[in-house]
Amino acid sequence: MTTIEKITALCKSRGFVFPGSEIYGGLANTWDFGPLGAELKENIKREWWKFFVQQNPTSVGLDGGILMNSAVWKASGHVDGFNDPLIDCKSCKTRHRADHLIEKHSKGKVSADFKPNEWLEKWIDDNKVKCPTCGKTDWTKIRQFNLMFKTNRGVVEGQEDTVYLRPETAQNQFVNFTNVQRSMRMKIPFGIGQVGKAFRNEITPGNFIFRTIEFEQMEHQQFCHAKDAKKFYEDYKKLAWEFNTKVLGINEKNLRFKDHETLCHYAKMACDIDYNFSFGWGELAGTHHRSEFDLTQHINHSKKSLEYTDPVTNEKFVPTVIESSQGLNRSVLVCLHDAYHEEKVDDDTRVVLKLHPRIAPYKVAVLPLQKKEQGEQAYELCRELSKHFACTYDDTASIGKRYRRQDEIGTPFCITVDFDSVKGKSVTIRHRDTMKQERIKTKEIESYVKLHIL
Amino acid sequence: MTTIEKITALCKSRGFVFPGSEIYGGLANTWDFGPLGAELKENIKREWWKFFVQQNPTSVGLDGGILMNSAVWKASGHVDGFNDPLIDCKSCKTRHRADHLIEKHSKGKVSADFKPNEWLEKWIDDNKVKCPTCGKTDWTKIRQFNLMFKTNRGVVEGQEDTVYLRPETAQNQFVNFTNVQRSMRMKIPFGIGQVGKAFRNEITPGNFIFRTIEFEQMEHQQFCHAKDAKKFYEDYKKLAWEFNTKVLGINEKNLRFKDHETLCHYAKMACDIDYNFSFGWGELAGTHHRSEFDLTQHINHSKKSLEYTDPVTNEKFVPTVIESSQGLNRSVLVCLHDAYHEEKVDDDTRVVLKLHPRIAPYKVAVLPLQKKEQGEQAYELCRELSKHFACTYDDTASIGKRYRRQDEIGTPFCITVDFDSVKGKSVTIRHRDTMKQERIKTKEIESYVKLHIL
Repeated sequence: MTTIEKITALCKSRGFVFPGSEIYGGLANTWDFGPLGAELKENIKREWWKFFVQQNPTSVGLDGGILMNSAVWKASGHVDGFNDPLIDCKSCKTRHRADHLIEKHSKGKVSADFKPNEWLEKWIDDNKVKCPTCGKTDWTKIRQFNLMFKTNRGVVEGQEDTVYLRPETAQNQFVNFTNVQRSMRMKIPFGIGQVGKAFRNEITPGNFIFRTIEFEQMEHQQFCHAKDAKKFYEDYKKLAWEFNTKVLGINEKNLRFKDHETLCHYAKMACDIDYNFSFGWGELAGTHHRSEFDLTQHINHSKKSLEYTDPVTNEKFVPTVIESSQGLNRSVLVCLHDAYHEEKVDDDTRVVLKLHPRIAPYKVAVLPLQKKEQGEQAYELCRELSKHFACTYDDTASIGKRYRRQDEIGTPFCITVDFDSVKGKSVTIRHRDTMKQERIKTKEIESYVKLHIL
Repeated sequence: MTTIEKITALCKSRGFVFPGSEIYGGLANTWDFGPLGAELKENIKREWWKFFVQQNPTSVGLDGGILMNSAVWKASGHVDGFNDPLIDCKSCKTRHRADHLIEKHSKGKVSADFKPNEWLEKWIDDNKVKCPTCGKTDWTKIRQFNLMFKTNRGVVEGQEDTVYLRPETAQNQFVNFTNVQRSMRMKIPFGIGQVGKAFRNEITPGNFIFRTIEFEQMEHQQFCHAKDAKKFYEDYKKLAWEFNTKVLGINEKNLRFKDHETLCHYAKMACDIDYNFSFGWGELAGTHHRSEFDLTQHINHSKKSLEYTDPVTNEKFVPTVIESSQGLNRSVLVCLHDAYHEEKVDDDTRVVLKLHPRIAPYKVAVLPLQKKEQGEQAYELCRELSKHFACTYDDTASIGKRYRRQDEIGTPFCITVDFDSVKGKSVTIRHRDTMKQERIKTKEIESYVKLHIL
């Protein structure tokens, strides 16, 4: 059975994800992507960009800064309203998220989103919610803590400006709306895509890389006229589903749409795509009808016009935003979770990551049957293929062991160079999922593999 | 003539780079990469990764966190020693970098690197260096200011940990040395490559994106035995040169090797690659022989063994590091600077970015000769080609004007769909640099372009 513990262990031992700053005892909820995790993450990001930006005929990209003028976060509402309701256990002094205590106690049946402190306190009191650490029911009042990391810009003491690490990437797209629209001569409807890091100073429940204080978001903001918003909302819901099932190859059975039960004050419609993790359903992506809220806020705070004038009708309006958002770190976790399989092969258990070839870290492993005989030739072949896609070379241990190693890291194709390869100019290609082997010409490997990673 | 002002203006108007948080009056020395800048930056990054990681047979990648345990920066020396010597003008209250004042006053003839405060103060005094702002010579003593951005982790008041935004990316590679080596079963010599953001709270001299408080580094750390260090140092110097000239296509005449005159305390050898900017020579990349300093520091501070045992000789040793480092933002600036050309064409001036096709934001622009006649067909062709590389479609203005627009943003190929295209299944392909046109079959466009961006 797939568990987060097994995936975490595999990730550490096989170079996907390491605990951050591990040699110094770590830093809670930070993780480093190792060699294979870095490749997997980059592949997912690249596919997202291709799908939402490159192949989207009315979309362009953006790559904005993590550090922005703090006025941005005043306008967006994050300075005043981006808080977690925290509550302390008077007995053991541990601190908890009040909404999470309620959701856990009610086994997910009660949603505590956007509820006022009084409501939360009363619920905890009425239901005698116990401290998960010590079991007592001796709680403080709830206090709101802002989730943004704060730092100071400027080396002149006394003249420093507070600067926040962005808690979401979307604001770059909003504040650059006019710059992008004008410089690229875009006509509404159009979209801006961006992938980048965001930071939240949260108490996190763990679950490996599901929720981390530093994470990457892939976001596409579609700017449109209010009358077209519903259509684009439905379109982008479908696109998000298509991206996850068709492009990343996630099993549809493990995904579901989940409409938000409670909406943020600015949202008109919101629908997540959840994944069925071993620890329960968890959010992977979301489509959000953000109304005209974002640009209106920035117009009011910056006193700049971010309105758009339709070149045909001459109508002047504040564009509505349909947001498509997906967590990149979560996408990595979902891909690993969905790909993880344990199979009985003969009397043994084979661990295999059935990643779609287009996102697999290595596309090909080149293996000489015997190092002495074919080592040099296999190594050269690996170098040649590396010009086209990520490859690895392995000449240690038995061929069977080497196949299993590649299965475990999701390499879709193993190329074995054997006695016949030297004269016959052909190799054996082994398929990860079926373990079937076939003979192909050496010069055809490149096009064969490329066909499978399109 | 190419100037930073012209490049900055082009970047803003044509969607390469916008001032950060512009609608709020900006945030000093932050910039956002617009649609074309994001593509250019990504292309450079991808080529770097391909060159230094994917095609490097003994190298693997890494993607570590920006937030690390602060003990890392204690060990690396950044907490105690990563300072700028700042001096205040008592008269006008402006603050300056003392070393920069000296370098500017001496017109670059005196290097003030790593000099003690007393030396700097005496030089400024002896040479009567004037305040660049008010012209007075009434200076305070020099004080050292740490350049790391500081923030706090943890929402529990009174229990917060100081966390720094990493001021360089290299430490991720060092602290993960053993994790990478073991999980990937690497044998020394091997390398770890990484691209990521770093942050420095500096007084910056401007020059557009040359020096910014948030920036990206592309770094490759080669771990080797001390006896092989010189060889790898020379190898990586050559590779850096090859990457910039052959892969990015930078004109060799605008590059030079520059050995460091003064070495950091841990460095044994260091050599930059400088680019001849319109504002003078500036550092683009560097190769650094860092000795055993980095891993030794982390062994001492973490009390963990980061030694390596050679599987053949059984020799146990602390690996030496040869670092190859290149600024990604600077690479964008260098590529733009080197590509920028103004040419007389008839009575007009043509602005053209002669970017290498492999890094150009758009590979192809598809243009219908007349929107009414070929618009639909050209649009479909653009959509089809977008599956393979970044393309743009333009059906406004005269064909001549549209060619110039593409020249200005560096698009290497313009495909014109004309009357004959509809029946003849062929198009005109125009080359940006020569402005020559030729006729090719529609179905051959993909392979034609791919050949030029390999």
